[in-house]
Amino acid sequence: MRTIKLTLEYDGSNFCGWQIQKNTNCRTIQGELEKALTKIFKQRTKIIGSGRTDAGVHAFGQVAHFKSITSMNVEEILRAINGNLPQDIAVINVEDGHAGFHSQFSAKRKIYRYVLNNRISHLTWQRKYMLHFPCHLNIRAMRRASKILIGKHDYRCFMAADAAKRNKAAGQNTVRTIYRLDIHKSLDIISLELEANGFLYKMVRNIVGTLLDIGTGKITQEDLANILKKKDRNLASETAPAHGLSLVKVDYK
Amino acid sequence: MRTIKLTLEYDGSNFCGWQIQKNTNCRTIQGELEKALTKIFKQRTKIIGSGRTDAGVHAFGQVAHFKSITSMNVEEILRAINGNLPQDIAVINVEDGHAGFHSQFSAKRKIYRYVLNNRISHLTWQRKYMLHFPCHLNIRAMRRASKILIGKHDYRCFMAADAAKRNKAAGQNTVRTIYRLDIHKSLDIISLELEANGFLYKMVRNIVGTLLDIGTGKITQEDLANILKKKDRNLASETAPAHGLSLVKVDYK
Repeated sequence: MRTIKLTLEYDGSNFCGWQIQKNTNCRTIQGELEKALTKIFKQRTKIIGSGRTDAGVHAFGQVAHFKSITSMNVEEILRAINGNLPQDIAVINVEDGHAGFHSQFSAKRKIYRYVLNNRISHLTWQRKYMLHFPCHLNIRAMRRASKILIGKHDYRCFMAADAAKRNKAAGQNTVRTIYRLDIHKSLDIISLELEANGFLYKMVRNIVGTLLDIGTGKITQEDLANILKKKDRNLASETAPAHGLSLVKVDYK
Repeated sequence: MRTIKLTLEYDGSNFCGWQIQKNTNCRTIQGELEKALTKIFKQRTKIIGSGRTDAGVHAFGQVAHFKSITSMNVEEILRAINGNLPQDIAVINVEDGHAGFHSQFSAKRKIYRYVLNNRISHLTWQRKYMLHFPCHLNIRAMRRASKILIGKHDYRCFMAADAAKRNKAAGQNTVRTIYRLDIHKSLDIISLELEANGFLYKMVRNIVGTLLDIGTGKITQEDLANILKKKDRNLASETAPAHGLSLVKVDYK
């Protein structure tokens, strides 16, 4: 039995996210992939991703795996899957995973990028891939505040409220390590890139929402420190919209 | 009477090009702009662009102008027009043109960019903004050949066949000067950027089509020299598809 590792790109605009949702007609990335695999291998084939991405979130380098006894080589597998996928998902790399490889449990680090456009005029071709944010942002204040988030912390305050409740009840671990949080600005485009050993549900979008509130002066760096200390989702800012977010890379080294 | 100069961005995907087409229901950029201006100024207002872009061609920096006696300031004009435009066109700058300014006749140089993606997998989010070109391309051969095109030449061979016929009949000038033709490659993305004092109808897409034929080895550098010398459109390659092309900048200095 082989473990096949796929690297995937998708335009999340027209999906209800990664995960198959029962009893709905929602298009999901997992659903489209399993449909393609089941057709190619003529038997029901399940696929497991490194993690779920939400409705509207894009990916340049999502990783997933499936098990198969196929004798096709990796290039044949790539062409066969792509030939059976809709135009908004593509497999960009196929390789054989090492013994015991698991796209979720073997993942060491993930990189997410959130992109916004700070200009006054509405967006045209970028509108599905960047958040339009026409207010003045104090980038230096955002960069300064972002340093507080780097390192090993309990990020419960940045987890979606309902998930936090469930997680707490289940006694699950909400501690993660953020290795890097870079804020780039080039003309009107501002991108926030986060690298961590894992992310809680909606964590990136909640961090971005809070940093945007620092950028506009709605809250201060001290407020952010306090939010993190109190571990209370209700103190943090609104979740930033999904369409500005992309899963850039999953690292297994 | 003021001459108002607009800098425009648009996603050309769902337009039949810049120019209003009589007796059709085709959406055009000029048509949408005139509709917005006529509504704002409560009288029929005509707009003139630096040049027409074809159906499917995008723009980051198209320039157009209109005449008006409005007393609104430039920021008010920008907001008013954007408030009346569909989401795939945006005004990104408004200024008062100097006396005698004309978006077409005052233009000194234009920059167009053609982008293609050379990977095997189909494109997802980029599919409307890049040509998918999965064949091997000899970039060095393309760069070498592109040097032949730089300078002042009669580019009739790269003009759309029907336009070339009309132009010849009308005795119009098909001589242009290309100042720059750069070919960049970054990972799978190849972009060709052309700067000239003007472009003939479909000239960029015909040049790109011919350079792609050089990249794949279908024709040689000598063939290109010959095509240019013979001034015969039928010798040149197929027109590259519209969706990879964007008008980047119009220069008036």
